[in-house]
Amino acid sequence: MTEEVRLIIVGFGVVARSLAGSLEARGEEFRRTRGIDFHLVAAVDSKSAAIDRNGLDVRELLRRKEETGRVGRRSLPATEIIEDTEADILVELTPANPLDAEPGMTHLKSAIKSSKHVVTANKMPLAHEYPSLMTSAESRGVQVRYSACVGAGLPILDFGDACAVSEPLLKVEGVLNATSNFVLSRMESDSSSFPEALEEAKKLGYAESNPWLDVDGVDSAAKIVIIANHTLKKSLTLKDVAIVEGIRRISPSRVKALREEGKKVRMVASVERRPEVRVLELPRGDPLSIDGACNVVKFHCKYSGERVVSGPAAGGVTTSSAVMRDLLRVGASIGGS
Amino acid sequence: MTEEVRLIIVGFGVVARSLAGSLEARGEEFRRTRGIDFHLVAAVDSKSAAIDRNGLDVRELLRRKEETGRVGRRSLPATEIIEDTEADILVELTPANPLDAEPGMTHLKSAIKSSKHVVTANKMPLAHEYPSLMTSAESRGVQVRYSACVGAGLPILDFGDACAVSEPLLKVEGVLNATSNFVLSRMESDSSSFPEALEEAKKLGYAESNPWLDVDGVDSAAKIVIIANHTLKKSLTLKDVAIVEGIRRISPSRVKALREEGKKVRMVASVERRPEVRVLELPRGDPLSIDGACNVVKFHCKYSGERVVSGPAAGGVTTSSAVMRDLLRVGASIGGS
Repeated sequence: MTEEVRLIIVGFGVVARSLAGSLEARGEEFRRTRGIDFHLVAAVDSKSAAIDRNGLDVRELLRRKEETGRVGRRSLPATEIIEDTEADILVELTPANPLDAEPGMTHLKSAIKSSKHVVTANKMPLAHEYPSLMTSAESRGVQVRYSACVGAGLPILDFGDACAVSEPLLKVEGVLNATSNFVLSRMESDSSSFPEALEEAKKLGYAESNPWLDVDGVDSAAKIVIIANHTLKKSLTLKDVAIVEGIRRISPSRVKALREEGKKVRMVASVERRPEVRVLELPRGDPLSIDGACNVVKFHCKYSGERVVSGPAAGGVTTSSAVMRDLLRVGASIGGS
Repeated sequence: MTEEVRLIIVGFGVVARSLAGSLEARGEEFRRTRGIDFHLVAAVDSKSAAIDRNGLDVRELLRRKEETGRVGRRSLPATEIIEDTEADILVELTPANPLDAEPGMTHLKSAIKSSKHVVTANKMPLAHEYPSLMTSAESRGVQVRYSACVGAGLPILDFGDACAVSEPLLKVEGVLNATSNFVLSRMESDSSSFPEALEEAKKLGYAESNPWLDVDGVDSAAKIVIIANHTLKKSLTLKDVAIVEGIRRISPSRVKALREEGKKVRMVASVERRPEVRVLELPRGDPLSIDGACNVVKFHCKYSGERVVSGPAAGGVTTSSAVMRDLLRVGASIGGS
């Protein structure tokens, strides 16, 4: 028995394209091993939409997007598509907007209102309104899953969940922005200036064309809010992050001086009582002083001490792997295995 | 609504005593927050047994064990108690025996035969007969959970599960024996000899009085077999571990010479095609070159690269935390929340 699971993908950037490629390449595997038959019934980008209730031809869709920059010929409001298309899951992959979390916020609310599950890689709606979004999802009986919002593909929230089964978590802290960490590591390893290292990060596809969300700490702030709500059962929004320090003003000479003292400068987000993002000087051996486009998170467990998880956390492929994890879990819960 | 969950604990060493203490101290919390009301209906140590179908007085039991070295006055065969006592879960905490995995093996089989779930911290039965034990548990419709067999409280298997949802795992490798790692770290940090460092590990409660399972690599071999079966879906037993290297012959002079080259010697268990345990020289910055009584495991994921998890992994408190995790999960699956 395979269960048909119908998806709407809204936002068609690098994560969505990687995801669509996986759905196409691994479709047969998922049908066979999980009993889940994913159908992409609608795809929406900023300029256009494509809808087919029987399932879009994903290969054709990807080709069209590559050739024309659009998924479809027509333009239709995303909210209308989300509310009116028969589907099981909205996959929300529009860009993070720290000001009002739009258009993602409206998309999530439309999906919940029309009783669709949500899988999202867009952290800002959750950072802005986690408590109320979860309450309304619960009242509608739908799941909101957001693995990809923290750690890209690195299953940070899952690890925290496993720790929290039998122990209270006292504090969580970590390097949550891979781009900033790449920049700081690069400044350290080859004495690049901040702009040079950031340029390198852009070239490698780690940084957005407008990378201030990363380097000014806002991305980390959004992520620590999500971790605090999910793992520590707090009820916070972005406004509760009292301190947000960025790395824009860090000079090569400071990095060099620290290196000579055996220290590294790192952007560390943490939450114990209140969430904050600080730029800290860490000894080289500190678990949080990881190098490269990685994330690392330390969970302080009441009985077992400090548990640490780390790994690469940038780029479309690993982020789409987290989205896929969520899709497979929702799929399993609604009929697959 | 609270669900009564009846436990039999067999083996009453340091992990069992820590677990019993938690059941006592946190009973009200579990009733309130999880809807699970744990009752210890039987406790068995190597010399005696205590049974009460309405639930033993745990405080009294712990006091008696401390004062007399026994949990009860009578001696009864553990298998008889396991098979004849009405209970939901056998908690198997007898010492690891690498030769034939007894008495744990018989206990597990008795529990499965009498349709009881199993939560175990004794890795040897699983290392010897994982595939057949799981098959017979499945045919009886009972769960066998074994978090505590790998990583003590560190949720290594959970983390692997989360990675494996959406990506094939290609290889797993790690430092799985905290005692050996403590010994090697100590030899490095203060130039102790192997016997001195091992003595220190015993004093701190990390090493058993007969620590050859740890330092000769057998404990690591058993754990990598369990990880390979659980995470990579292999079908292996301890006999399949082709190479098992121990650390008994490592000299302070070798450790010192390596330190001067910026390297550390570590006992690393790994599985790609076949499982093995090797003593490796690692660069100081390698994620596996962790210090102290810790475990660290690297999961090589097909799409997202290397993900690493680490933390303290020795002692009764953290091990009993993993047993509690399993108990709460079995409890949730049979009626709690």
